[in-house]
Order: sequence, then C-alpha cells, then structure tokens
Amino acid sequence: MRQRVRERGGPVDFALFTYWVRVDVRYSDLDTQGVVNNATYLTYFEHARVHFFEWLRAGMNASDGTSPHGSAAGGASATEATGFTAADVPFVLARATCMYRRPITGLAPVHVGVRCTVAGRATIEMEYVICDRPNSPNSLASDVTLYASGTTTAVCVDARKGKPRSLPEWARRALEMRAAEA
Amino acid sequence: MRQRVRERGGPVDFALFTYWVRVDVRYSDLDTQGVVNNATYLTYFEHARVHFFEWLRAGMNASDGTSPHGSAAGGASATEATGFTAADVPFVLARATCMYRRPITGLAPVHVGVRCTVAGRATIEMEYVICDRPNSPNSLASDVTLYASGTTTAVCVDARKGKPRSLPEWARRALEMRAAEA
Amino acid sequence: MRQRVRERGGPVDFALFTYWVRVDVRYSDLDTQGVVNNATYLTYFEHARVHFFEWLRAGMNASDGTSPHGSAAGGASATEATGFTAADVPFVLARATCMYRRPITGLAPVHVGVRCTVAGRATIEMEYVICDRPNSPNSLASDVTLYASGTTTAVCVDARKGKPRSLPEWARRALEMRAAEA
Amino acid sequence: MRQRVRERGGPVDFALFTYWVRVDVRYSDLDTQGVVNNATYLTYFEHARVHFFEWLRAGMNASDGTSPHGSAAGGASATEATGFTAADVPFVLARATCMYRRPITGLAPVHVGVRCTVAGRATIEMEYVICDRPNSPNSLASDVTLYASGTTTAVCVDARKGKPRSLPEWARRALEMRAAEA
Repeated sequence: MRQRVRERGGPVDFALFTYWVRVDVRYSDLDTQGVVNNATYLTYFEHARVHFFEWLRAGMNASDGTSPHGSAAGGASATEATGFTAADVPFVLARATCMYRRPITGLAPVHVGVRCTVAGRATIEMEYVICDRPNSPNSLASDVTLYASGTTTAVCVDARKGKPRSLPEWARRALEMRAAEA
Repeated sequence: MRQRVRERGGPVDFALFTYWVRVDVRYSDLDTQGVVNNATYLTYFEHARVHFFEWLRAGMNASDGTSPHGSAAGGASATEATGFTAADVPFVLARATCMYRRPITGLAPVHVGVRCTVAGRATIEMEYVICDRPNSPNSLASDVTLYASGTTTAVCVDARKGKPRSLPEWARRALEMRAAEA
Repeated sequence: MRQRVRERGGPVDFALFTYWVRVDVRYSDLDTQGVVNNATYLTYFEHARVHFFEWLRAGMNASDGTSPHGSAAGGASATEATGFTAADVPFVLARATCMYRRPITGLAPVHVGVRCTVAGRATIEMEYVICDRPNSPNSLASDVTLYASGTTTAVCVDARKGKPRSLPEWARRALEMRAAEA
Repeated sequence: MRQRVRERGGPVDFALFTYWVRVDVRYSDLDTQGVVNNATYLTYFEHARVHFFEWLRAGMNASDGTSPHGSAAGGASATEATGFTAADVPFVLARATCMYRRPITGLAPVHVGVRCTVAGRATIEMEYVICDRPNSPNSLASDVTLYASGTTTAVCVDARKGKPRSLPEWARRALEMRAAEA
C-alpha cells in the first residue's frame, strides 16, 4: 500500500478522501491578520487523524469485523459512543508538511479529509485536505474550496520503552481493508 | 434585566440556559494531566459567546424581526449560513471567572450553555456552563455532568477610538426580547 | 496565612509581589483584535505559577534549607538548572478569575508577579499581576503598566486516586518561610 | 542567494545559524504524552521568524546602516526597545515543514535558530532548528541536542489588496548584507 504523497501544490483528487471530519473554527484560532494561524492547521490535521484512527478501530471492534462505513462522509463523531481516549493512539509524529493554499478567514466550520497513503511496519504516512465542505458523490471538485493540504509521517511507539513498535493489529487490519476497498 | 451571577460553587439551574453550542474537544486541548487545560475553558466560553451573539443577530435580521428559536437547543452552527465574522462582535472582556467542577478527561464533545445575565448600556454580563450534553425539556438535571461554570463581563468598544460605546442596537433589542420570553 | 484576595478592580500593591516571571508574548497569542486573547492570560498565570512552585522547591532543596532569593526579581528561569518537570506540580485548579485592565497590544514581553495569599491543608490560593515590567525596589508603582490581575484556587490532588491530598511538605514549608519574611 | 533547504533528516550544520531566539516552553504546550505538541513547533518557528525580521529591521534602521550584530547569539529580545508590532511583518505562509527528531519533554527553555535560505522577489524561504542551547563559537555540534528542524516559504502580501508584493526594502537589503557576510 503505497501512494504518492503530495507535498507540493497542484490539483488534489478529492475522490481519494472518503473520511471527513468537521472542525469548528474557534475565534482564538484567528490571528492578527484575521485568518487561522499557520500552526493551527496542524491542530486540524491532528483532530482529523485522531478521529480517523478512532473510526478505524470502532469498525474493527464491531461484531462482524467489517470495515466501518456509516459515519465517514458525514464527519460524525464516533467519540461519543466509544469512549475513545488519547491513550488509544500510540503515535508520535516524525514529520509534517502543510501547503497553505487559501486563508481561512472566518468562523464557518471547515472539513478535513484524511487518508492513509503508506502503512509500514511501525510507520503510517497520511495525507490531509482542509476544505469548506466534505467531498461527496454529489459534489464536483470545482464546488470545493481547498484551504490547505498536507502530510504527516507518524511512528508507532511503545510509550514505556520510548521505542518504535509494530502498528496495533486493529490499525493494520483496518488499513488493509480500506486499501482493498479503494 | 439583572440576575444573580454565580461565581462560586453550588447547584446550577440548567433550565435558565436555552442556547447551547457543541464544542469538539481537540487532542491539543488536553495537557500532561490528560485533562482539558484550565485556560482552554475560557476558549470554550468564548466560542459559545461568539455563536450566541451571532444567533441573536441572525434572529434580529430575519424578516419578521422575531427572536430566533430554531437552532438553539441543538447547538447548530448558524455561522454556515450567515457569514458572521469576528469583526461583528465589538466586545472586549473586562473580567472572567471559571469554576472547575470536574475534569474533562477525554475527546468526547462537550456542550456549552450561555446566557446573558445583565445588559447595561455598554456592558454585558454572561454566565456559562460546560456539560456533557445540552439541557433539553426531556432531560433531568441529574442526567447532566457539569464540568464547569463561569462568568464574563464584556464591554462594547469602538475599535477605532478604543473607547466604550453603546451596545449595537441588534444586541440590545435581541437581549430584551430574550429577557421578556424568559 | 490569609490575605485579602483581590477579585475586582482597584489599585494593586505591587510591593506584595516578590516573585516575577518574564513571559514572551507569542505572535499566535494575539487574536483578530491585535491583542492577547483573553484565555491566554490564564496561560500566563499558569506559566508564573509553575515557575513559582519550582522556585519554592529549588529553595527548599538547597543545602542550607533557606528560602530562595536570587532569581526572584529578575524572573530568571531556574528550570534550566533543576530539571523540574510538569509532574512535580500535583495541583488542579478549582477556580480562576481574571480582571482585564488594559489590552496587551504588541510583542514586547510582559512580566507576571505571583504570590500565595492563602495556604490551606490541600488548597493554595494565589494572586497574579501582569505588567510591562517587574516590580523592583527602584521602581515606583506609577511606572508600571498593569495589564491584568487575577486569582486562582488550586487543590493538591493524588493523581492516582484522583482525590485531594495534603500539600507537599516542601510547598508547605516554603510558603511558611515566605510568609514569615513578608 | 540560494541554499539547499533541508526537508528530510540527516546532520544539520549549526554554524549556518547565526540568529537564535530563546523560547520558554509553556506548561500548556505539553500534551497528554508529556511532550510539546506537534503543532506548537510551528509556533516556535513563528516566534523565531517574527523576531528575526524584527532584528533585521532594527539593524537597517540603525544610523550607520550596518547589519545588526549584538543580540544575535544571545537571543535577546530587541522587541523591548523597538516597539515592533505584528503589523510590521506582512508575510503569509505558503508552505511549512517540520522534522521531529527528539521529543521536548520538559519545561526547560529551548533555542530556535533561524536563517534565510532563499530570498526571491516576493518570497522568502527559511530554515529553522530547535535545540536545547544556541549555537556559539565555543560550542561543538556534539554538545547540542536537536529537537527539530524545519522550513517555511513565506510570501509577502499587500494586506489591503490581498496580493503578493515585493519584499520590503529593509528586508531585501538586510538579507543581502547577511548573505554577503556568510
């Protein structure tokens, strides 16, 4: 499972993103230029990443073991049901990039699409887009305003030992399923 | 329009709060103790305050001039429709208090109830509660987990002159309507 | 050891504050109004509180057991020497207040004075001021710009049990010493 | 003036960084893993970038027109003297990258080295390192702990028109001087 990771500008294929999370822009996210501060984009990526992993895990924990479907495009928050906590995501970032394409100027919510591009033994590479609306089968790419795109490389670590470890089994299986579907 | 502002502990009358905003807890809101950092509570209050004012203004701008109703309890974000921007809220805080009652320990969303307790010539006092769910006619107070309560005093300022000014007409009228309904 | 905690406006007695910490204003601390965001004041208080406790502890750990003196007024960071970590401050906030007196409009550093006003069995009440310069024997109160004042009530908790516990011995002794000196 | 921008791992030439800014780690910068949150690294970069521009400008404004020298290695904050404000830095980011090399685990201050790698007509590319101490003629690279490195591409914009514009004259001249010295 290896796909090209986009780290420079150019068109984005929104259809690749099937999981979207709504992010409410907070007043304090805006800086003196009246736009969302550059560092906050990584916070939006993180929010999407955490919920993406939660969604993967919730799907693997379902009785039939099938890949999760329901809440994806709607960006609903499975957190309410599952009691997912921060400790369930044993990753640390090794690298992050962000392409800022258009400023986010107001308080309207944005939508973050996230997908896994590479899943290695202990490493996950992910790609993100921040848009004014989630992609859907009914929307054209030309309808969507792309605020930013970005990538992260995360390493799975054993918190006690401080060393890399294999991805959790649920993550590996869920990512394989997702890749097979794509 | 003057009501007691609660700045100490003790029971909260949830029924007084008719406007609620959902706030998604972000991973980076949590500090090393695994709980939402104390300063972030003021950010949650601010998020609710900004949306409360937006909701008041959207109602006053409606053709029939009646007080807004629809989106209140559901905590929906009218921002999407109205293009409300940060510049529409010409307030600065003069004072804020927060009572931390229970730690917010996970990534499940919280719900912030907000109401105006005193509307003066250039000043608005507000009260907030942060709970695990919004109050509703069908919920009992005993069902609700209260994470925090708090107050703010905001002063309306003329941004160019840096001096206090009267509340915007839409704010005054909307607050009077709300008070009459209560 | 009980002193009046100031939660409303009015003159501040800067001479009561003998410990000061410099805080560098970050560009992202400023919001769309070009001033430090209201929630960030609690972050500044927290920064001062953490370093105040570190300073107390470093003093108690010194070989002669005397109260610390050196770094106070200068606001130097003892952290570099002591390896103090977040886990060394087993407090959670029960209450915080902030009086915003003048906006912090630029990127010049501010100075936070912090002192203990009440030390109970498991509780510490503290008072803070945020100024453009630290108080010193050579400065007059009229020289100092007061941006904000505030208070916190912190409870010492046993992290594993989640219950209040007595203040650490070093904190109790250090606070008694400081009170005796005042 | 074009130098290789490092976006991947590998050794860093600390000697290239002649301007350093001290950043005080705040308690709230740490997340539930007890380390500085990934998005906050971009805030540290930003803090260094803003002060770097301030330092360049302060040097160009000096009566003799020579490049600034004094405060560089010490990381002192010229902000106190110059009244530099956020509005003086008319840049928006087009791209940012960060390589996380070692977690920042405590509250000891870090030091951010920053330098310009490419200065175009309207664009500035910069490189950053976050270390436990600033580089100095007396320190060996082996003494320094490298927490992170990163890059940004910033575009100079006309705030009113929202369009790219040429770099300010002071920035262009200062960067040319610095390049000539290197």
